[in-house]
Amino acid sequence: VPRTVRFRTAAAGVTAAKGFSAAGVPCGIKTKRNAPDLGLLLSDRPCVIAGLFTSIKAPAAPVQWDRALCRRSIARAVVVNSGNANACTGERGDRDAAGMAIAAADSLGLDPDQVAVASTGIIGRPMPMDNVVAGILDAADRLSPDPAGAAAFAHAIMTTDTVEKTLAVRTVIGRRLVSLGGSCKGAGMISPNLATMLAFLTTDAAVSPAMLRRALKAAVARSFNCITVDGDMSTNDTLLLLANGAAGNPRIDRPGRAFDQFAAALEFVCVRLAKSIVRDGEGATRFVEIRVTGARSDKDARTVARAIANSPLVKCAVHGGDPNWGRIVCRAAGCGAAFDPAKTRLRLGGALAYSRGLPARTSLDRLQAAMKEKDVDIALDLGLGRGTATMWTCDLSRDYVKINADYHT
Amino acid sequence: VPRTVRFRTAAAGVTAAKGFSAAGVPCGIKTKRNAPDLGLLLSDRPCVIAGLFTSIKAPAAPVQWDRALCRRSIARAVVVNSGNANACTGERGDRDAAGMAIAAADSLGLDPDQVAVASTGIIGRPMPMDNVVAGILDAADRLSPDPAGAAAFAHAIMTTDTVEKTLAVRTVIGRRLVSLGGSCKGAGMISPNLATMLAFLTTDAAVSPAMLRRALKAAVARSFNCITVDGDMSTNDTLLLLANGAAGNPRIDRPGRAFDQFAAALEFVCVRLAKSIVRDGEGATRFVEIRVTGARSDKDARTVARAIANSPLVKCAVHGGDPNWGRIVCRAAGCGAAFDPAKTRLRLGGALAYSRGLPARTSLDRLQAAMKEKDVDIALDLGLGRGTATMWTCDLSRDYVKINADYHT
Repeated sequence: VPRTVRFRTAAAGVTAAKGFSAAGVPCGIKTKRNAPDLGLLLSDRPCVIAGLFTSIKAPAAPVQWDRALCRRSIARAVVVNSGNANACTGERGDRDAAGMAIAAADSLGLDPDQVAVASTGIIGRPMPMDNVVAGILDAADRLSPDPAGAAAFAHAIMTTDTVEKTLAVRTVIGRRLVSLGGSCKGAGMISPNLATMLAFLTTDAAVSPAMLRRALKAAVARSFNCITVDGDMSTNDTLLLLANGAAGNPRIDRPGRAFDQFAAALEFVCVRLAKSIVRDGEGATRFVEIRVTGARSDKDARTVARAIANSPLVKCAVHGGDPNWGRIVCRAAGCGAAFDPAKTRLRLGGALAYSRGLPARTSLDRLQAAMKEKDVDIALDLGLGRGTATMWTCDLSRDYVKINADYHT
Repeated sequence: VPRTVRFRTAAAGVTAAKGFSAAGVPCGIKTKRNAPDLGLLLSDRPCVIAGLFTSIKAPAAPVQWDRALCRRSIARAVVVNSGNANACTGERGDRDAAGMAIAAADSLGLDPDQVAVASTGIIGRPMPMDNVVAGILDAADRLSPDPAGAAAFAHAIMTTDTVEKTLAVRTVIGRRLVSLGGSCKGAGMISPNLATMLAFLTTDAAVSPAMLRRALKAAVARSFNCITVDGDMSTNDTLLLLANGAAGNPRIDRPGRAFDQFAAALEFVCVRLAKSIVRDGEGATRFVEIRVTGARSDKDARTVARAIANSPLVKCAVHGGDPNWGRIVCRAAGCGAAFDPAKTRLRLGGALAYSRGLPARTSLDRLQAAMKEKDVDIALDLGLGRGTATMWTCDLSRDYVKINADYHT
C-alpha cells in the first residue's frame, strides 16, 4: 500500500459517493426536544456490504441483524438511531431491530433483508417504536444526495459527541473517479476491538465482497482498532462499508494495483475518522499518540501501548500537562510484556525523558512543553526486538467524570 | 481457618506487639515544611521477616534491597521514607537504599543486613541523603513502644493518603496472648498484585520463616491482592511482616491449630488494612465490593471482577450513584471471560438489576438507593460454573483527576 499517497478530501461524508442519499431527523427517541436521533442512508442500486462488529459476548439486537445481512453481502440501505441502544432488550429487541428494517424497507420500496440497522444510546430500554417508525417515514421523505443530507445523517447518529465526524476522499481507480466517504460517532466507551462506535462508509467503487472485507479488515486494524478512550467495549459497535459500483471502474476482485489504491483510500478515511473519535473523546482536551517500538513482538508492543493508553494515571498526567514519565515507564514495566529498564528509552514530543533506567538530562521545561501540546507524542523504545504498535487516546479530565457520573440510567 | 473468629482490635499499629518501638519525624524530603516523611521501626530482639513485593519489571532500589534481606529471613529494624520513591535512580539509588540501612544500623547498633528499607513518593529523583540521615538520627532518638510511636510511624509513611491506616489485634495462641498489628499507605496507583502500597506488619508470635511466608502469602491473596484503585502497579510496592517471638508461644513451625489461628488473625488485619486503602483511594467517595460467582473458573471470575473494578465508566457511574448495570454487564461480556447473557444475573445492593439478558423489574428507586450507599455492593452471577472472586475498589471522582493531573513531576 503506497503510504505516501495524498487524497483530495471532500465535504460530503456518506453522500460523497455517487448514488447515495441520506437524511437525519428528530423523532423523539432522545429526551431532548428536537434532537436529531434517526438517520437513513440509501443507495440507488444494490451495494456490496462488509461489516465489523463488537466482539462483546452480549451484542445488541441490531448487531445480530447486521451480522446476518453481511454474510449475504448485499444491501441497499441503512437505518440508524441514537438515544436508545436496543441492547439487553431480549426477544423484543430482536423484533424491534427487524421492525426498523421492515419500516425502512416499506418506506423505500425495498426488501427488509437489504436494510442494515444500527442503534446507540441507553442500554436496557425498549425501543419507542412508534417514534422510530414515524422518524423513518419522515427521513425517507427527506433523503438527499447533497452534502446537507450527509450532514443531517452525521448529526443524527451523535450521542455525547460534541462534533460531527465526517470525511470523504476522491481518487482515480481504473481510470474512473472514485469517491469514498463516511461518518462515525464515538465519545465514550471506546476501546479495541471497536467500541461504542458506529461508522458508516460508502463508496461508488465496484469491489467484490471478498476484497471489500479484506480491505476493511486491514484498514480497521490500522485505525479504529488503535483507539481507546476508556478501555470499555460496547454492545453496539458497528462499522459498515457499502460499495455500489456507480463509479464504473472495473470491479476490484483480486489483489493488485487497483485494490491497493482502494485500500489506501479506505485506510486514509478510517485513520482520520478514528482519530476524530479520540479527539472528541468524552471530556478530552488533548490527543495522545503512543508509539511502542523495540518490543519482543508486535503482540507485546500492543500490550504495552494499550496499557499506557488505558492508564488513568498516565491520562491524568497528560491532562495536567505533566511530563510524568515515571507513570508511563511503570505501566510498561507492569503490564506483563517483556521489559528491561536498562534497555528502555522514552521520548516525549521527541525529547528524551528516560533512558536505560534513569531520567534523561533533558530540561523539565522542554518535557513540560511537550506535554502541554494539543497533540502529545509518547514514543517508547523497549530495545528488545522488532515489535511495534501505535495507539491513539485522549486525556482523562474532570469533564470525563462529570459526563459519566451524571449520565442518567 | 475459622472464618467466624472475631478479634479484639487494639489502638497501637506497629507497636502493639511486645518488643517493638517506632517513630516518625519530618526531615525535609517532602517539600511541604514539617511534613513527617521518615519512619523507623525497631524490634528489641531479632525477628523472622517475610516480604511480598511489586511484580513490576523495574522495581525501585529499596525493593531489591529488601528482597535480598527477606531471603535471609532475619531482621531487626525497618527504615522508610515518603516523598521520594528512590525509583528509576540507577546505581546511585542502590547506594542510597544501602545508605539508609547503614545509617539506621549505625544509629541503632545493628548490622545493616538486619535493616529493611522502603521508599514511596516521586520517581526518578535522587534521594536527599543529608536530610534522610539526619531524619534517621532524629527518629532513633524518638523511638517509642507507646501508641504515639506507632501513630508517628503511620503518619510518616503517608503520601496522598488522607488518613493514617493502622490496626492491631490480640488473640491467644498456645496459651499466650499474641499481638499482631500494622500500618499501611496507599491512595493511588493501587492494583493487584500489590501496588503503590507500603505495609508494615509486626507480631510477637514465634513463627518459623517458612510458616510466616505461607501465612503472609495466603492472607495477601485474600486482601491486598483484591484491591484496585486505578489498575496501576508501582515500582515500590512492599509488604513486610516481622515476627519477634516475644509472646513466648511455642514456635509455630507446621500446619495445625496454632498456625490456623495465626493465619486467621493475619488475614483479619490484612483485609481491614487493604479495605482502608481503597476507602482512602485518591478522590474516593464510595467503597465498592464486586463479587463474581458462577464463573467457569476462579481465573475467569478474577478477570471479570478486575475488569469491572478497573472500568472508568463503572467507577464514574458509582460516583454518580447511578445504577448503570449496562456498563457492568458490558464490561463482564467484553473482558474475554466466558459469558452468556441468558445465564447472567446482576444484583446491586441485593436487588436484582439484570437477569438473563433483560433488565429486572426492580424499581429504579430501589436500584438508585443501592448505588447511593457509602458502601456499594455489586454481585454478578455468571451462571456458568463454580468460579468466584471478590475485588474491592472505589469510585472515580473529579478529585481523582484533580489530584493526578496537578501532581508535580
